[in-house]
Amino acid sequence: MSFLDDFHPTQLKLTVESPTFWRVTFDNPPINVIGLEMMRELKELLTELEHNDTVNVVVFDSADPDFYIAHYDVEVDNDAAEALPTTTGYTAWVDITVRMSKLNAVTIAAIRGNTRGAGSELVLAMDMRFASLEKAKLAQVEIALKAVTGGGASGRLPSLVGRGRTMEILLGGEDFDGALAERYGYVNRAIPDAEFEDFVNAFARRVSGWDHQAIVEIKAFIDKYTRLPDAEYPLHSDAYWAGVSRPEVAGIVGRLLDNGMQQRGPLEYDLGRQIATIAQEEA
Amino acid sequence: MSFLDDFHPTQLKLTVESPTFWRVTFDNPPINVIGLEMMRELKELLTELEHNDTVNVVVFDSADPDFYIAHYDVEVDNDAAEALPTTTGYTAWVDITVRMSKLNAVTIAAIRGNTRGAGSELVLAMDMRFASLEKAKLAQVEIALKAVTGGGASGRLPSLVGRGRTMEILLGGEDFDGALAERYGYVNRAIPDAEFEDFVNAFARRVSGWDHQAIVEIKAFIDKYTRLPDAEYPLHSDAYWAGVSRPEVAGIVGRLLDNGMQQRGPLEYDLGRQIATIAQEEA
Amino acid sequence: MSFLDDFHPTQLKLTVESPTFWRVTFDNPPINVIGLEMMRELKELLTELEHNDTVNVVVFDSADPDFYIAHYDVEVDNDAAEALPTTTGYTAWVDITVRMSKLNAVTIAAIRGNTRGAGSELVLAMDMRFASLEKAKLAQVEIALKAVTGGGASGRLPSLVGRGRTMEILLGGEDFDGALAERYGYVNRAIPDAEFEDFVNAFARRVSGWDHQAIVEIKAFIDKYTRLPDAEYPLHSDAYWAGVSRPEVAGIVGRLLDNGMQQRGPLEYDLGRQIATIAQEEA
Repeated sequence: MSFLDDFHPTQLKLTVESPTFWRVTFDNPPINVIGLEMMRELKELLTELEHNDTVNVVVFDSADPDFYIAHYDVEVDNDAAEALPTTTGYTAWVDITVRMSKLNAVTIAAIRGNTRGAGSELVLAMDMRFASLEKAKLAQVEIALKAVTGGGASGRLPSLVGRGRTMEILLGGEDFDGALAERYGYVNRAIPDAEFEDFVNAFARRVSGWDHQAIVEIKAFIDKYTRLPDAEYPLHSDAYWAGVSRPEVAGIVGRLLDNGMQQRGPLEYDLGRQIATIAQEEA
Repeated sequence: MSFLDDFHPTQLKLTVESPTFWRVTFDNPPINVIGLEMMRELKELLTELEHNDTVNVVVFDSADPDFYIAHYDVEVDNDAAEALPTTTGYTAWVDITVRMSKLNAVTIAAIRGNTRGAGSELVLAMDMRFASLEKAKLAQVEIALKAVTGGGASGRLPSLVGRGRTMEILLGGEDFDGALAERYGYVNRAIPDAEFEDFVNAFARRVSGWDHQAIVEIKAFIDKYTRLPDAEYPLHSDAYWAGVSRPEVAGIVGRLLDNGMQQRGPLEYDLGRQIATIAQEEA
Repeated sequence: MSFLDDFHPTQLKLTVESPTFWRVTFDNPPINVIGLEMMRELKELLTELEHNDTVNVVVFDSADPDFYIAHYDVEVDNDAAEALPTTTGYTAWVDITVRMSKLNAVTIAAIRGNTRGAGSELVLAMDMRFASLEKAKLAQVEIALKAVTGGGASGRLPSLVGRGRTMEILLGGEDFDGALAERYGYVNRAIPDAEFEDFVNAFARRVSGWDHQAIVEIKAFIDKYTRLPDAEYPLHSDAYWAGVSRPEVAGIVGRLLDNGMQQRGPLEYDLGRQIATIAQEEA
């Protein structure tokens, strides 16, 4: 398998549990932000999975029990990000989320730790989400940066949690723990942390044993009834960038960085609450 | 602000918690029915909110802990109601629910007490619904009057509770308490009554501090994926009026009034059960 | 009523609880598979209900507390099944599920016992589903036979449980007990078994007393917003038959039959688990 020989990611770890079951582990210390290199590696992985007819299931987990994906790297070099290869022609992040939502393999988010902003959007683009009851925390905090969600949360949440709860998640910008995320349908299920890995692995192993073609056909029917047209998602991205490009947003981001954003510390642990305080003081 | 100077409602109480956070309190004793004057006042409020670019969030609560909105006033003067100003051209009640579902401000139903019929439809037209765990009770009882719901419940419930539970709510006509309403998605969350006001106020205060334009844009995307075309709703209204205009319905309404409907007493407290008994005895 | 005089089913039992409330009890020992005769009887019943303007509600329950509908009869004579009368022109099973989803009467699945494969699809085609908390078990196991669900589960689940949970149900193929089925929305509610019959009967009796025309109109609006076009469902059926007709599937079915499939015994009680073991050993 030449892909496995050639793929040497530094912020993802790829484990071949079996020919039909891959595990991708986010590992970008200190808190797993999605930056340039992680996007480059995700795109490389997606390109392989788009052409791979063997892998049935991919579990996405994290090497850090406290941070699944913290959020987008607010200091990313945007020009470099947009210069990364794209197969959809969409902006860097939308290219990733749209492609993630269309793979033949079954994609499973195994969520333990904080998963906010683009992290939440990445798991929403996967086929299903299991969360650690005690350790998962999800949020879409973009409203604190005066922006809509840029990677599709407003397009994907309605088919999971319905209209009213989508409104609350996106307009409140608050943290959802595992139990509440399950009650809302934001994740499929919250599993007690002690059983979490066994549960996810057993489910993935089961799926890994099915017929690949049947998986592809089942996903195609579900997609037909539940996935928006791809062309919706660039609209979200355009609106996001227009929002965060407003001059006053730089001030909010600056204050967040001064207070510990992107570092392993109290602000990132409690971002759902702190981002509102700081954004609203700055306003 | 000339609106605030000129708006002197008698069945609503408007509290300006801050320039970006308004509270509207239903206060039409004895049980908060929606009659001519309340519709007039709601329309005036809606017209203001449609042109107001400052208010971020409006909480709708009730002055009466037992009755949020009991239901439509079954003795309303229909000709007078239809003579009230309308901007949609739809019938009086549909004009209100359709416009409520399209405001720029975030609308939050803070539901404590009985909320049936048009009361349930009004909260369904809002962006989100929080309910008192012990004190909220919701129902669509129109089927007892041989009618479909006239203000859009069959159009709005599916995107909240799904097909099967919409069937149950509308075809059963039964009361849903806070806990069951949350399990179904009929409300976002049921909150223990002791914490209810603090919870809603904290959420609203948070939303009141966000950027107004970001709120508008987020709502626009969610609406695009979850709101039916306005033109569906007059169809509901036409069917409702055709149903309740059948001659035998007058007999049911007469018996309900004889037994205490629209008064503060046992029939209204237990309407979900009693309306079936009376309607089916009359049939 | 000439239908009642002429209808003498042997695998269904029809009980006229009242002129407006019918009960249909599945009774095809040993485990209530859906075979040729049950399909013939269901089609006859559907034809009557399509022309009956009196019956308000039909409860479908089972004579066997352990098996509601086990699944499709894997040994059915397909040519004979397709020779049964059809009003839609679709294949035998799709003809039944599509017609079941469009009746004027309210259809209620009272689920106690195992309900897998076509059994799950039949209850998904009904208007609402109540489950025994302790005794219900639902699953779509078709993926073990290398096939999509042939009777519409991938078209009906999304409007009940959302995209992510539909993925899990269809791609996992696992058993869902009553509690989990309720958390997901797979059933409306799970009711403790001791109260189950009373609950369902009280609900059905209530619906049986409503105005028939109002029921029809309410269902029409809900259908308009939640039912896929009928023409989707033959696509599922074609894909199902293509899947199970692959030569290696005969081997899986053979091993399942050798191990007790279609008999009252350990394999059928625990089919959700056992079908994966056997299918994946065979593969």
